[in-house]
Amino acid sequence: MDIDLSPGLPDLSGFPRSAWWRAERSVLGGAAAAEFAYGDPRGSHTLRQELASWLARVRGVRADPRDIIVVGGVAQSLALVAQTLRAAGTTEIAVEDPGSRGAQDALAHWGLEPVPVPVDEQGLRVAELVRSGLRTALLTPAHQFPTGVVLAPDRRRELLAWANDGGLVIEDDYDAEHRYDRPPVPALQASAPERVVHTGSISKTLAPGMRLGWLIAPRSLQDALVAAKHASDLGSPVLPQLVLARLISHGDLDRHMRLTRGRYRTRRDAFLTALTARLPSVHVQGVAAGLHLLITFPELTGRVDDTDLSESLRGAGVLTHPLSWHRRTPGAPGLVLGYAAHPPDRLREAARRIAETVQSASRARAERKHVPRAVRDYG
Amino acid sequence: MDIDLSPGLPDLSGFPRSAWWRAERSVLGGAAAAEFAYGDPRGSHTLRQELASWLARVRGVRADPRDIIVVGGVAQSLALVAQTLRAAGTTEIAVEDPGSRGAQDALAHWGLEPVPVPVDEQGLRVAELVRSGLRTALLTPAHQFPTGVVLAPDRRRELLAWANDGGLVIEDDYDAEHRYDRPPVPALQASAPERVVHTGSISKTLAPGMRLGWLIAPRSLQDALVAAKHASDLGSPVLPQLVLARLISHGDLDRHMRLTRGRYRTRRDAFLTALTARLPSVHVQGVAAGLHLLITFPELTGRVDDTDLSESLRGAGVLTHPLSWHRRTPGAPGLVLGYAAHPPDRLREAARRIAETVQSASRARAERKHVPRAVRDYG
Repeated sequence: MDIDLSPGLPDLSGFPRSAWWRAERSVLGGAAAAEFAYGDPRGSHTLRQELASWLARVRGVRADPRDIIVVGGVAQSLALVAQTLRAAGTTEIAVEDPGSRGAQDALAHWGLEPVPVPVDEQGLRVAELVRSGLRTALLTPAHQFPTGVVLAPDRRRELLAWANDGGLVIEDDYDAEHRYDRPPVPALQASAPERVVHTGSISKTLAPGMRLGWLIAPRSLQDALVAAKHASDLGSPVLPQLVLARLISHGDLDRHMRLTRGRYRTRRDAFLTALTARLPSVHVQGVAAGLHLLITFPELTGRVDDTDLSESLRGAGVLTHPLSWHRRTPGAPGLVLGYAAHPPDRLREAARRIAETVQSASRARAERKHVPRAVRDYG
Repeated sequence: MDIDLSPGLPDLSGFPRSAWWRAERSVLGGAAAAEFAYGDPRGSHTLRQELASWLARVRGVRADPRDIIVVGGVAQSLALVAQTLRAAGTTEIAVEDPGSRGAQDALAHWGLEPVPVPVDEQGLRVAELVRSGLRTALLTPAHQFPTGVVLAPDRRRELLAWANDGGLVIEDDYDAEHRYDRPPVPALQASAPERVVHTGSISKTLAPGMRLGWLIAPRSLQDALVAAKHASDLGSPVLPQLVLARLISHGDLDRHMRLTRGRYRTRRDAFLTALTARLPSVHVQGVAAGLHLLITFPELTGRVDDTDLSESLRGAGVLTHPLSWHRRTPGAPGLVLGYAAHPPDRLREAARRIAETVQSASRARAERKHVPRAVRDYG
C-alpha cells in the first residue's frame, strides 16, 4: 500500500468519532427548530461565540462574535477575500516563495495576480515586500508552508510596521496549533486587528473533509465579505457548526489537540531520526511545528530534479510533493513530507524508500554526467 | 408570537432528527478514514450515486454520478453557473417575472444581468423569450416562484424547442417534490440533458440550514463548473453528504416526504378554506403544489400597495413577502404566503389577521380617495 506523505493531512484515523457523535446527539436533541432555517450568512451565533473565546485563548485573536464569518475552510476565505479585494480594485498580491501552490492558483482564479516574495530561514523577507510596493500580502506566519519556518520576531515587527503604514496582511493561520517544543506564537491579527485578515480552519486539527473554518476581517471589509459569502452559498451548513461549538465548549477539541500533539511529536521524532540516519547530508526544515517537514538536497542542485524524484518515489509507493511545485524561484531540489497520518514504523519504511530513491537518482545522475545535453534532456 | 409566512420554509419542527442521528451514527461508525480527507470537489461519490438513482426515480433526471456536483444549496449552484457563463462571455439571462428576487440579486452579483420575461397562468411566456433573443434562461418549471404555476405542456414543448435551437435552460427544480393532487411533472432536464442545467436541494424537503443540494450540467459545462466549485470551497462538507446518502438509500427521505406531503396538504386546505371564507374576492394561485401560495387583489390595483400591506401585516404579527418584491412589471397587489411551517389553527389565525388588514387597507384607501395627489404620495 502506498504511503501518502502529501502535506496537510492530519491523522484521519484518529478523528474523534465518538466525541463528534455525542455532540451531534446533543445538538439534535436540543437545538431550536429555527436553527434549521436560512440563517445569518456569517454562520451560527453559537459557534461564533465559542470561536471568539477559543481563538482569543489559543491564538490571541481579538474578535467579537459579530466579526467572525464561518466559512468552508481557508480555501473559501481566500475566495471571498480575493473577490472582495478585486472588486475594490486590487489586482496583485504578494505571496510567499516558496509558498502554497494551491493558494496561489486560488487567488489567480479570482483575479488577483500572485507576486512572489522570497522566504528565508526567518520567514518572509519583509524588506523585499516593502520594496515591491505591493499593498496586500498573503502569509502563513505561524508555520510557513512549505518551509515550516515561524516568522522571526524582527520580521514580524517589520511586517506590522508595513501593515500599519497601509498594508493589508492576509494571515492564513496554517498549522498554528501544532507547535511541539514551546507554545505557539500568537496570531498576527492580535497585534493589528484593523490591518490583518485572519483565517483558519479545523482541517488540520480535526479533518479537512469537514470544510469548516473562520474568517475574521477588519471592520472596513466585513460588509463586503458577508455579501460575498451570502452570494456564494447563503452561509455554511448549520449542523456541523453546532457540533463544533459543542466540541469547543465541552473541551473535546482541546483534548483532541493535546492527544494528537503528543502523537505527532512522536511521529516527527521517529521520521526525523530515520531520515537523518539514512540520508546524513539531508537538510531538514520545519520540524518545530506542523504536520509536515521539508527536506532539501543543496548538493544535488542542478543535478536532480525534484519533480522526477517525486515521480520515482511514487513508483516506490511513497506520495510526496516536490518542493518545486510550491516554488517560483529555482533552488535546491526538495520534498515536502507530511508525517502526521502515519505511525512510526510506516514512517521509517517511507524514510528507507526515500533514501534509496534519492541515492539512486543521485548515482544515476553522476553516471550520466558525460551524456550529451540533447540526449540528457530527453533521458 | 409572530406567524412567519415567509415563503420557502418547510416545517422545521418536523425535521427528522432521530433518522438523521441514526444515519450519522452509522456513518461515523462505518466510514473509511479516507472519507475525511480533502475529496473530489464534486462531492462524495457515495452521495452522487444515491442522488443519481433517486433523482432518476423521483424527478426523471438523467445523470451519471460523475455528472453531479454536490453544492451548498441552489444558491451556490446559481453562483457557480453565473460565474461560468459570465467567464464564457454571457452577460444577460432571462428570468421569470414575477420571479425570485433573491435569485436575480445573486445572478446580478456575479455579473449576469437578469432580464425579466413575463409569467402568466401557464408559466413563462416562451414566445417572449424567443423574441428577446436571449440564449440563457433561469426557470422554476415544476412550481414557479412565486406564482406556483406549473409550466404548461405547450410551453414546455416551446421551451425545449428553444433550448434545442441553442438556448440553455437553468432549471431550478424549486419545490418539485411537493405536488399534492397528482404526481409531479418530470424535470425538464429529462428531455434535454445537454441543454438543461438542473439544480435542486434538500432545503424544502428537509431544511434550508443543511445547505445541501446538487447541480447537474451538460457535459460541455462540467469542467468549468467543477473548477468553479473547487475555487469556491474545494468541495462541500463530507459528513452531511454521507448522512444524506444513507437517508436516501434506507428510504428515510422518501418516508419523510410522504409524511410531510400529507401534513402540508392538510395545512394548505385549512389555509385556503380560511382565506377564501374571509376574503371572498381574493384571487389564489399556486395551490397545486409547493409550500406557499400567492394571493392577489386585482380590484385593489392602483389603490393598495402590497409593500404597505405587508408592513401593516408585520405590525399585526404576520410576516409575508409582498408580491412586488418579486416582480419587475407593475400589477395587482399580492402577498406570497408560506403555509408549510404552521398547524391549521395558526394558519386560520393568520388568515383572520390578513383579512382584517386587507379590509382595513382597502377601506382606508377608499376614504382617502379625494385627498390630493401630493398629499397621498406622502401619506
